[in-house]
Amino acid sequence: MRWTMPSDRVPEAWYNVVPDLPEPLQPPLHPGTREPVTPDLLTPLFPMALIGQEVSQENYIDIPGEVLDILRLWRPTPLVRARRLEQALQTPARIYYKDESVSPAGSHKPNTAVPQAFYNHAEGVRRLTTETGAGQWGSALAYACSLFGIECKVYMVRASYLQKPYRRVMIETWGGEVVASPVDEPEHPGSLGTAITDAVRDAGAREDSHYSLGSVLNHVLLHQTVIGQEAKEQLQMAGEERPDIVIGCCGGGSNLGGLSLPFVTDSRVELLAAEPSSCPTLTGGKFDYDFGDSAGVTPLLAMYTLGHEFVPPAIHAGGLRYHGDAPIICDLVKAGRMRAVAYPQTKVFDAAVQFARTQGPIPAPETAHAIRAAIDEAVRCREEGRERVILFGYSGHGLLDLQAYDDYLAGRLGEE
Amino acid sequence: MRWTMPSDRVPEAWYNVVPDLPEPLQPPLHPGTREPVTPDLLTPLFPMALIGQEVSQENYIDIPGEVLDILRLWRPTPLVRARRLEQALQTPARIYYKDESVSPAGSHKPNTAVPQAFYNHAEGVRRLTTETGAGQWGSALAYACSLFGIECKVYMVRASYLQKPYRRVMIETWGGEVVASPVDEPEHPGSLGTAITDAVRDAGAREDSHYSLGSVLNHVLLHQTVIGQEAKEQLQMAGEERPDIVIGCCGGGSNLGGLSLPFVTDSRVELLAAEPSSCPTLTGGKFDYDFGDSAGVTPLLAMYTLGHEFVPPAIHAGGLRYHGDAPIICDLVKAGRMRAVAYPQTKVFDAAVQFARTQGPIPAPETAHAIRAAIDEAVRCREEGRERVILFGYSGHGLLDLQAYDDYLAGRLGEE
Repeated sequence: MRWTMPSDRVPEAWYNVVPDLPEPLQPPLHPGTREPVTPDLLTPLFPMALIGQEVSQENYIDIPGEVLDILRLWRPTPLVRARRLEQALQTPARIYYKDESVSPAGSHKPNTAVPQAFYNHAEGVRRLTTETGAGQWGSALAYACSLFGIECKVYMVRASYLQKPYRRVMIETWGGEVVASPVDEPEHPGSLGTAITDAVRDAGAREDSHYSLGSVLNHVLLHQTVIGQEAKEQLQMAGEERPDIVIGCCGGGSNLGGLSLPFVTDSRVELLAAEPSSCPTLTGGKFDYDFGDSAGVTPLLAMYTLGHEFVPPAIHAGGLRYHGDAPIICDLVKAGRMRAVAYPQTKVFDAAVQFARTQGPIPAPETAHAIRAAIDEAVRCREEGRERVILFGYSGHGLLDLQAYDDYLAGRLGEE
Repeated sequence: MRWTMPSDRVPEAWYNVVPDLPEPLQPPLHPGTREPVTPDLLTPLFPMALIGQEVSQENYIDIPGEVLDILRLWRPTPLVRARRLEQALQTPARIYYKDESVSPAGSHKPNTAVPQAFYNHAEGVRRLTTETGAGQWGSALAYACSLFGIECKVYMVRASYLQKPYRRVMIETWGGEVVASPVDEPEHPGSLGTAITDAVRDAGAREDSHYSLGSVLNHVLLHQTVIGQEAKEQLQMAGEERPDIVIGCCGGGSNLGGLSLPFVTDSRVELLAAEPSSCPTLTGGKFDYDFGDSAGVTPLLAMYTLGHEFVPPAIHAGGLRYHGDAPIICDLVKAGRMRAVAYPQTKVFDAAVQFARTQGPIPAPETAHAIRAAIDEAVRCREEGRERVILFGYSGHGLLDLQAYDDYLAGRLGEE
């Protein structure tokens, strides 16, 4: 069963969790002085509207009409009850997922790409730069820029640029420009860190350009809260008072935050982050100030981190290969309001294929981390005879990750 | 704007156009005797329920509850108003599309794959064989078979098997088996004709197996009529009395039939088929009895045909490379109830990219034929100052066809 809602039921305000956090957020620090960052450091990179959202203490921030008109092209996204998966698991739990894969770019990323492009366009910016790993974020921003007629330049990690050409083609189909990063070291395979450095330097050097980030920052998680707000309403349509547990995969934290933050103030709802055991930021990192990139050009953020020079193995869930996590997510974990769990890659693909063979859709490798956690929780419910309501985020489809499935089915996946 | 409907609004009966056709359908003929086919020729290949539907004169046929439960995993599909495309075209026309790309396999194909697997399973068949070109149909049938726990063997045109591995991976992810066709000539690139021959021979030789076809036959078009029935209701939700013109791309005719057949009896609604000019069955073929495959093992069908030995060029819209068309569609064209138009490949991709850059989604090359026709119609409306309502079928996404977009953007597409 699926619960859809008409276009006019897209939430008209974003929910800002910051005033509701268990502990106050620690401010970002200047990379040189280690003093709290002032807006003038950010204005060469971000429009004023987004800087304002980054530090806002208001609980709700109105979504501009032009942004709503675009979100309504695919939102509200469906809430689906995974009844066939429940039956296969013989669980008394009821499993629901919120399907963000229906957006044009195939993930939750356009939820923030569209308002970011809108605010930049509104403040006269004619060009955005960004980085992308496997290409999910780069394609979402290229799509958003095409809607406002602004240029988009994407610095793509060279290894992905060479091995995964199809996200590059998506970006170009929407009119964006893609180059391999690092731009000045053509033999270097690149990393998210080098690509951030390239994109920030490009935007900093040009008057007509700003920089755009697809996760981690407060305003990005803010934009994603349409997901959880819709899910709350749809669960009630399905006859559920609330979920007992909300699960999301966590790379930088934007999809997890989008789904779970609207449930933070309801202490009866458990929150769970699922991450790869090869990049175990929340389960294996330490809470400290660290840089957002590997070169140390960005402000320092208070977060769980594996160290900004940590290079995770090349797992297929490229979107989860980040040394840190969103400060908002880290705050919740540190305060004990959110729990985290880590999984090795093969266990994740076991879950992905079980999901595909019962429900149908083929999930992104990132999303499959949330599915793994949901299945484990449902099995626990069976063992304990508990009728819990499980809600997980279906953050994206795996149609551009089929090489990973081929590797898994042929037994070529490493154990990391 | 999008119009969605709750799961319980999936139509509960298929609409059978056969009794409403302008001219009675001519019966299929036995390939040897050229006498009308009797059911005993078909029982080794198809279950009785589908043979009954193939020759039914009833106007409505109930959809079994188990099939409805599965269709409701993604149906009703959204109806979308392409307002941003209208604005780009500066047309007074209102353009709507019915989005079948949201199914697990990414196209309309599961609408018939699911009931075909269901009826075979219900009659004790444990294994289905089929052919596939680029892989759309093979992946849909593998998905449907996974739902009923029956085996699926797909004979895939060798050229596609070697050049387009990702649809093969989808089939395998759903537990299906794929082999390259022709099986006994490993150097032969294969064609839809050779693959049909392989699949029919396999099913005919095994007691536990039946054969399944994804287009052309009456029962396939019947199953697809959920598309048009839903669209009719959603257009009324959108405040439109009816469409002035309904447009679909046409390869074998199942997507076009599914959308347009429920409008056949309303003579105020114009019907339009869009096909490739390199395989111009309806616009360049002759109406005659011809075989469904290239080897001449299937019954003869009364249809427009380019000759069963016709080999179309390797255009990217693999799903439209068929020498014939569904007898129902051909009947409508012959009687003047439906019109057809043909487009060269580059014009089709011009439309696809214009659509992607205004609306967002990246369409399948097949689907882009319908978009080309819809844009041309909308431009005509602008030139003539007419406010028409255009409805077209968005039969599938192009996420497994990005190589085609790369070729187009790089200027590598031929003019055929």
